[in-house]
Amino acid sequence: MNIFSAVCLKEFDLIQLLTRSLPSNPNVITGPGDDCAVLDLGLPDDYILFKTDAVVEGVHFTGATAPEKIGRKALGRVLSDIAAMGGKPCAALITLGLPPHYEVSTVEAVYRGLNALATEWKTSIVGGETTTNPGGMLLSIALLGTVPKTKCIHRSGAKPGDAIFVTGQLGGSIAGKHLDFEPRIAEAQWLANHFEVHAMIDLSDGLAGDLKHVLRASGVGAELFTKTIPISREAKLQAKVESSAKPPLLAALTDGEDFELLFTIASRLAVPLLDGWKAQFPDQKLSCIGRITETPGLRLRDHNGVREFSGMGYEHFSLPARS
Amino acid sequence: MNIFSAVCLKEFDLIQLLTRSLPSNPNVITGPGDDCAVLDLGLPDDYILFKTDAVVEGVHFTGATAPEKIGRKALGRVLSDIAAMGGKPCAALITLGLPPHYEVSTVEAVYRGLNALATEWKTSIVGGETTTNPGGMLLSIALLGTVPKTKCIHRSGAKPGDAIFVTGQLGGSIAGKHLDFEPRIAEAQWLANHFEVHAMIDLSDGLAGDLKHVLRASGVGAELFTKTIPISREAKLQAKVESSAKPPLLAALTDGEDFELLFTIASRLAVPLLDGWKAQFPDQKLSCIGRITETPGLRLRDHNGVREFSGMGYEHFSLPARS
Repeated sequence: MNIFSAVCLKEFDLIQLLTRSLPSNPNVITGPGDDCAVLDLGLPDDYILFKTDAVVEGVHFTGATAPEKIGRKALGRVLSDIAAMGGKPCAALITLGLPPHYEVSTVEAVYRGLNALATEWKTSIVGGETTTNPGGMLLSIALLGTVPKTKCIHRSGAKPGDAIFVTGQLGGSIAGKHLDFEPRIAEAQWLANHFEVHAMIDLSDGLAGDLKHVLRASGVGAELFTKTIPISREAKLQAKVESSAKPPLLAALTDGEDFELLFTIASRLAVPLLDGWKAQFPDQKLSCIGRITETPGLRLRDHNGVREFSGMGYEHFSLPARS
Repeated sequence: MNIFSAVCLKEFDLIQLLTRSLPSNPNVITGPGDDCAVLDLGLPDDYILFKTDAVVEGVHFTGATAPEKIGRKALGRVLSDIAAMGGKPCAALITLGLPPHYEVSTVEAVYRGLNALATEWKTSIVGGETTTNPGGMLLSIALLGTVPKTKCIHRSGAKPGDAIFVTGQLGGSIAGKHLDFEPRIAEAQWLANHFEVHAMIDLSDGLAGDLKHVLRASGVGAELFTKTIPISREAKLQAKVESSAKPPLLAALTDGEDFELLFTIASRLAVPLLDGWKAQFPDQKLSCIGRITETPGLRLRDHNGVREFSGMGYEHFSLPARS
C-alpha cells in the first residue's frame, strides 16, 4: 500500500491468491500474513524474523524526494515491521534499482540516510546489490531480526474484551512523517517485556485497514470510540487549508504510512499500561481507542450512536460536518 | 550483472564505494563481498546465510520470456549463491514489482515456476509482496540458508598451488540455460562434506570475471589452461551460425549466467576429487582448468605460451583464429 497513488493491484486479493499453496517446511512458525515471517532455525530461546519491503519512485516517493529520506524510509518501514512482532533488528540487505541515468551522489545519499537509521538501531548492512530499473528508482530491503519465543506478538491473538491502543497521532503523514518517522522498536520491546500483548500490527495501510487485518486474523470485531482516536495536527491542518482534503477523523482512520503501533491487551491492564507508559515514554502519546468484540466487523461509536465502518475509503463513509 | 545489456552501472566500483563504511555488529561473520552474507545468530553448529538478488525485465529477461521461467530463474540465482557457500536453503521472501497493467495469470505463472524450484530444494516461501513498478516487471528474492560453521566456503581462501575446478560447461547460456539451470546445491554440499574446498564462487558474471573476484579476495593470481576450459555446445554453435558471436573460448571466459561452481582445492586432492565426483555425479562434468599462483593477475596458457587476460570483455583480448 502507499499514499501517493490508488492501489491498482488489489494487493490483498492477489496475495490471498498467491499464498494459497506456497511451499513450506518444518522451520516455518508463521508464513505469509503477518508483519514478518517467523522461523525456528534451532536457536534455543529465539525465533528469527524475516521481512522484505520495497519503495518505488512515483509510488512511495517522488523524483523530488531527498535521497537521504528515501533510504531512511525504506529501512524504517521494515524496522517498523520487526517492531510490530516485538522483535529487534539484526542485519539487512539492500537492493537498489536505478534508472539508466543516475548520479552516484544520489546513491551515496540514499545510503547515508539508510546507514544513519541502521546505526541508530544497531542493524548491520551486510550487502547491497545495484541493478538497472528502467522505470525509476526502487529500493527493496530484506531484514532479519530476532524475538524471544515467549514474546513474539502476532496479529491473530486479539480477544473479545481487549482494549485497543495506538501509539502517536494518526493521519496526514504525507505532509512529511512518512519520510522521517521513528520505528517504534523501543516502545514495542518495552510492551512485550512488561505486558501480555495479545495482538500487534504497525500502521502502514491506515488505522481502519490495519485493524481489519488484526480482526480478520483473530476472528473478532472491534468498536472504536471516535473521540479517542488521536488525530495528528497535520491531518487537521490539511482539512483546514485544502478543500479536497479528507475530514480529519477520516484521515486518521484511512491515511496510510503512520508507522505507529496498534495493539490489544486485556482491558483490566489498560490503566497499569497507561501509567507505566507515561513513566517510560513521557513524550510519546498512547491512546486507548476502543475494544475488541465478539461480533465481527468494525464499528465507530460517537455521540450519535454506533455505525458500521464498511469501506476502507471515504466514498462509502458518511461523516458528520467537519469540526 | 546480466547478459542482455551492457553493464551501465560500473556495478563493482559503485558497490566498493558504498560498502566502505556500512554499519556492522558482532553477529556479522562476512558482510558484503561474498556470494552470501554470513551471520552468527547463536546457533550452536551453523551460520545463517543471507542473500538477495533481483531480476528485471529488459535486463535479465525480456517481455517474451515465459513467466514460469522468470520465477524459476529468480529463485535459481539465489539458490546458486547459497550453494557457492556450501550451504542449504531454508526460506525465501518474494518482492514482485508489476507494471500498471498486468495479467493475474502472469503473476500466477511466475509463482508456479518459483514454487516448483522451491519445492525441489525444500525451501519455504514465507511471504510475498507485490508493488507497482512503472517500468516493467522486477522480481527480487531474499533467501535464508544455513551452513555448518566448519564447512562454510568463502571466496577468499584460494592458496597458491591450488587446482581450479569448474562444474558443467560454460558460455552461451543466453540460448536457454540462463532460464532453466539447476543450482548446484547437491554438488556443493557433497564437495563441502568430502573435501577441504579452499574457495568457491558461482559463475554469474562469467568465468574470467568471477575468478577475478576470487583472486582479489584471496590476494593471489591464476593461470588457466585454455584447452581444458569446458566450452558449451551452445557457445560453439553460436560462433558457427552468428558472424557477430564471440569465439567459443571467449564466450566460455566472459559470458554471464552459467551458474556453475568454480572452486579451488589443494592440487594433491585433484585426482581423488575427480574419482569421487565421477562416482557421485556420473552425468555431471567437472573440469580442472588451471591453478592458483602467487603472481597476481589472470593468465591464459595455450600452445603459444602464456599471456595476460587483462579485460573482462573481448575488446582488449586478441584470440587466435576461430577453430
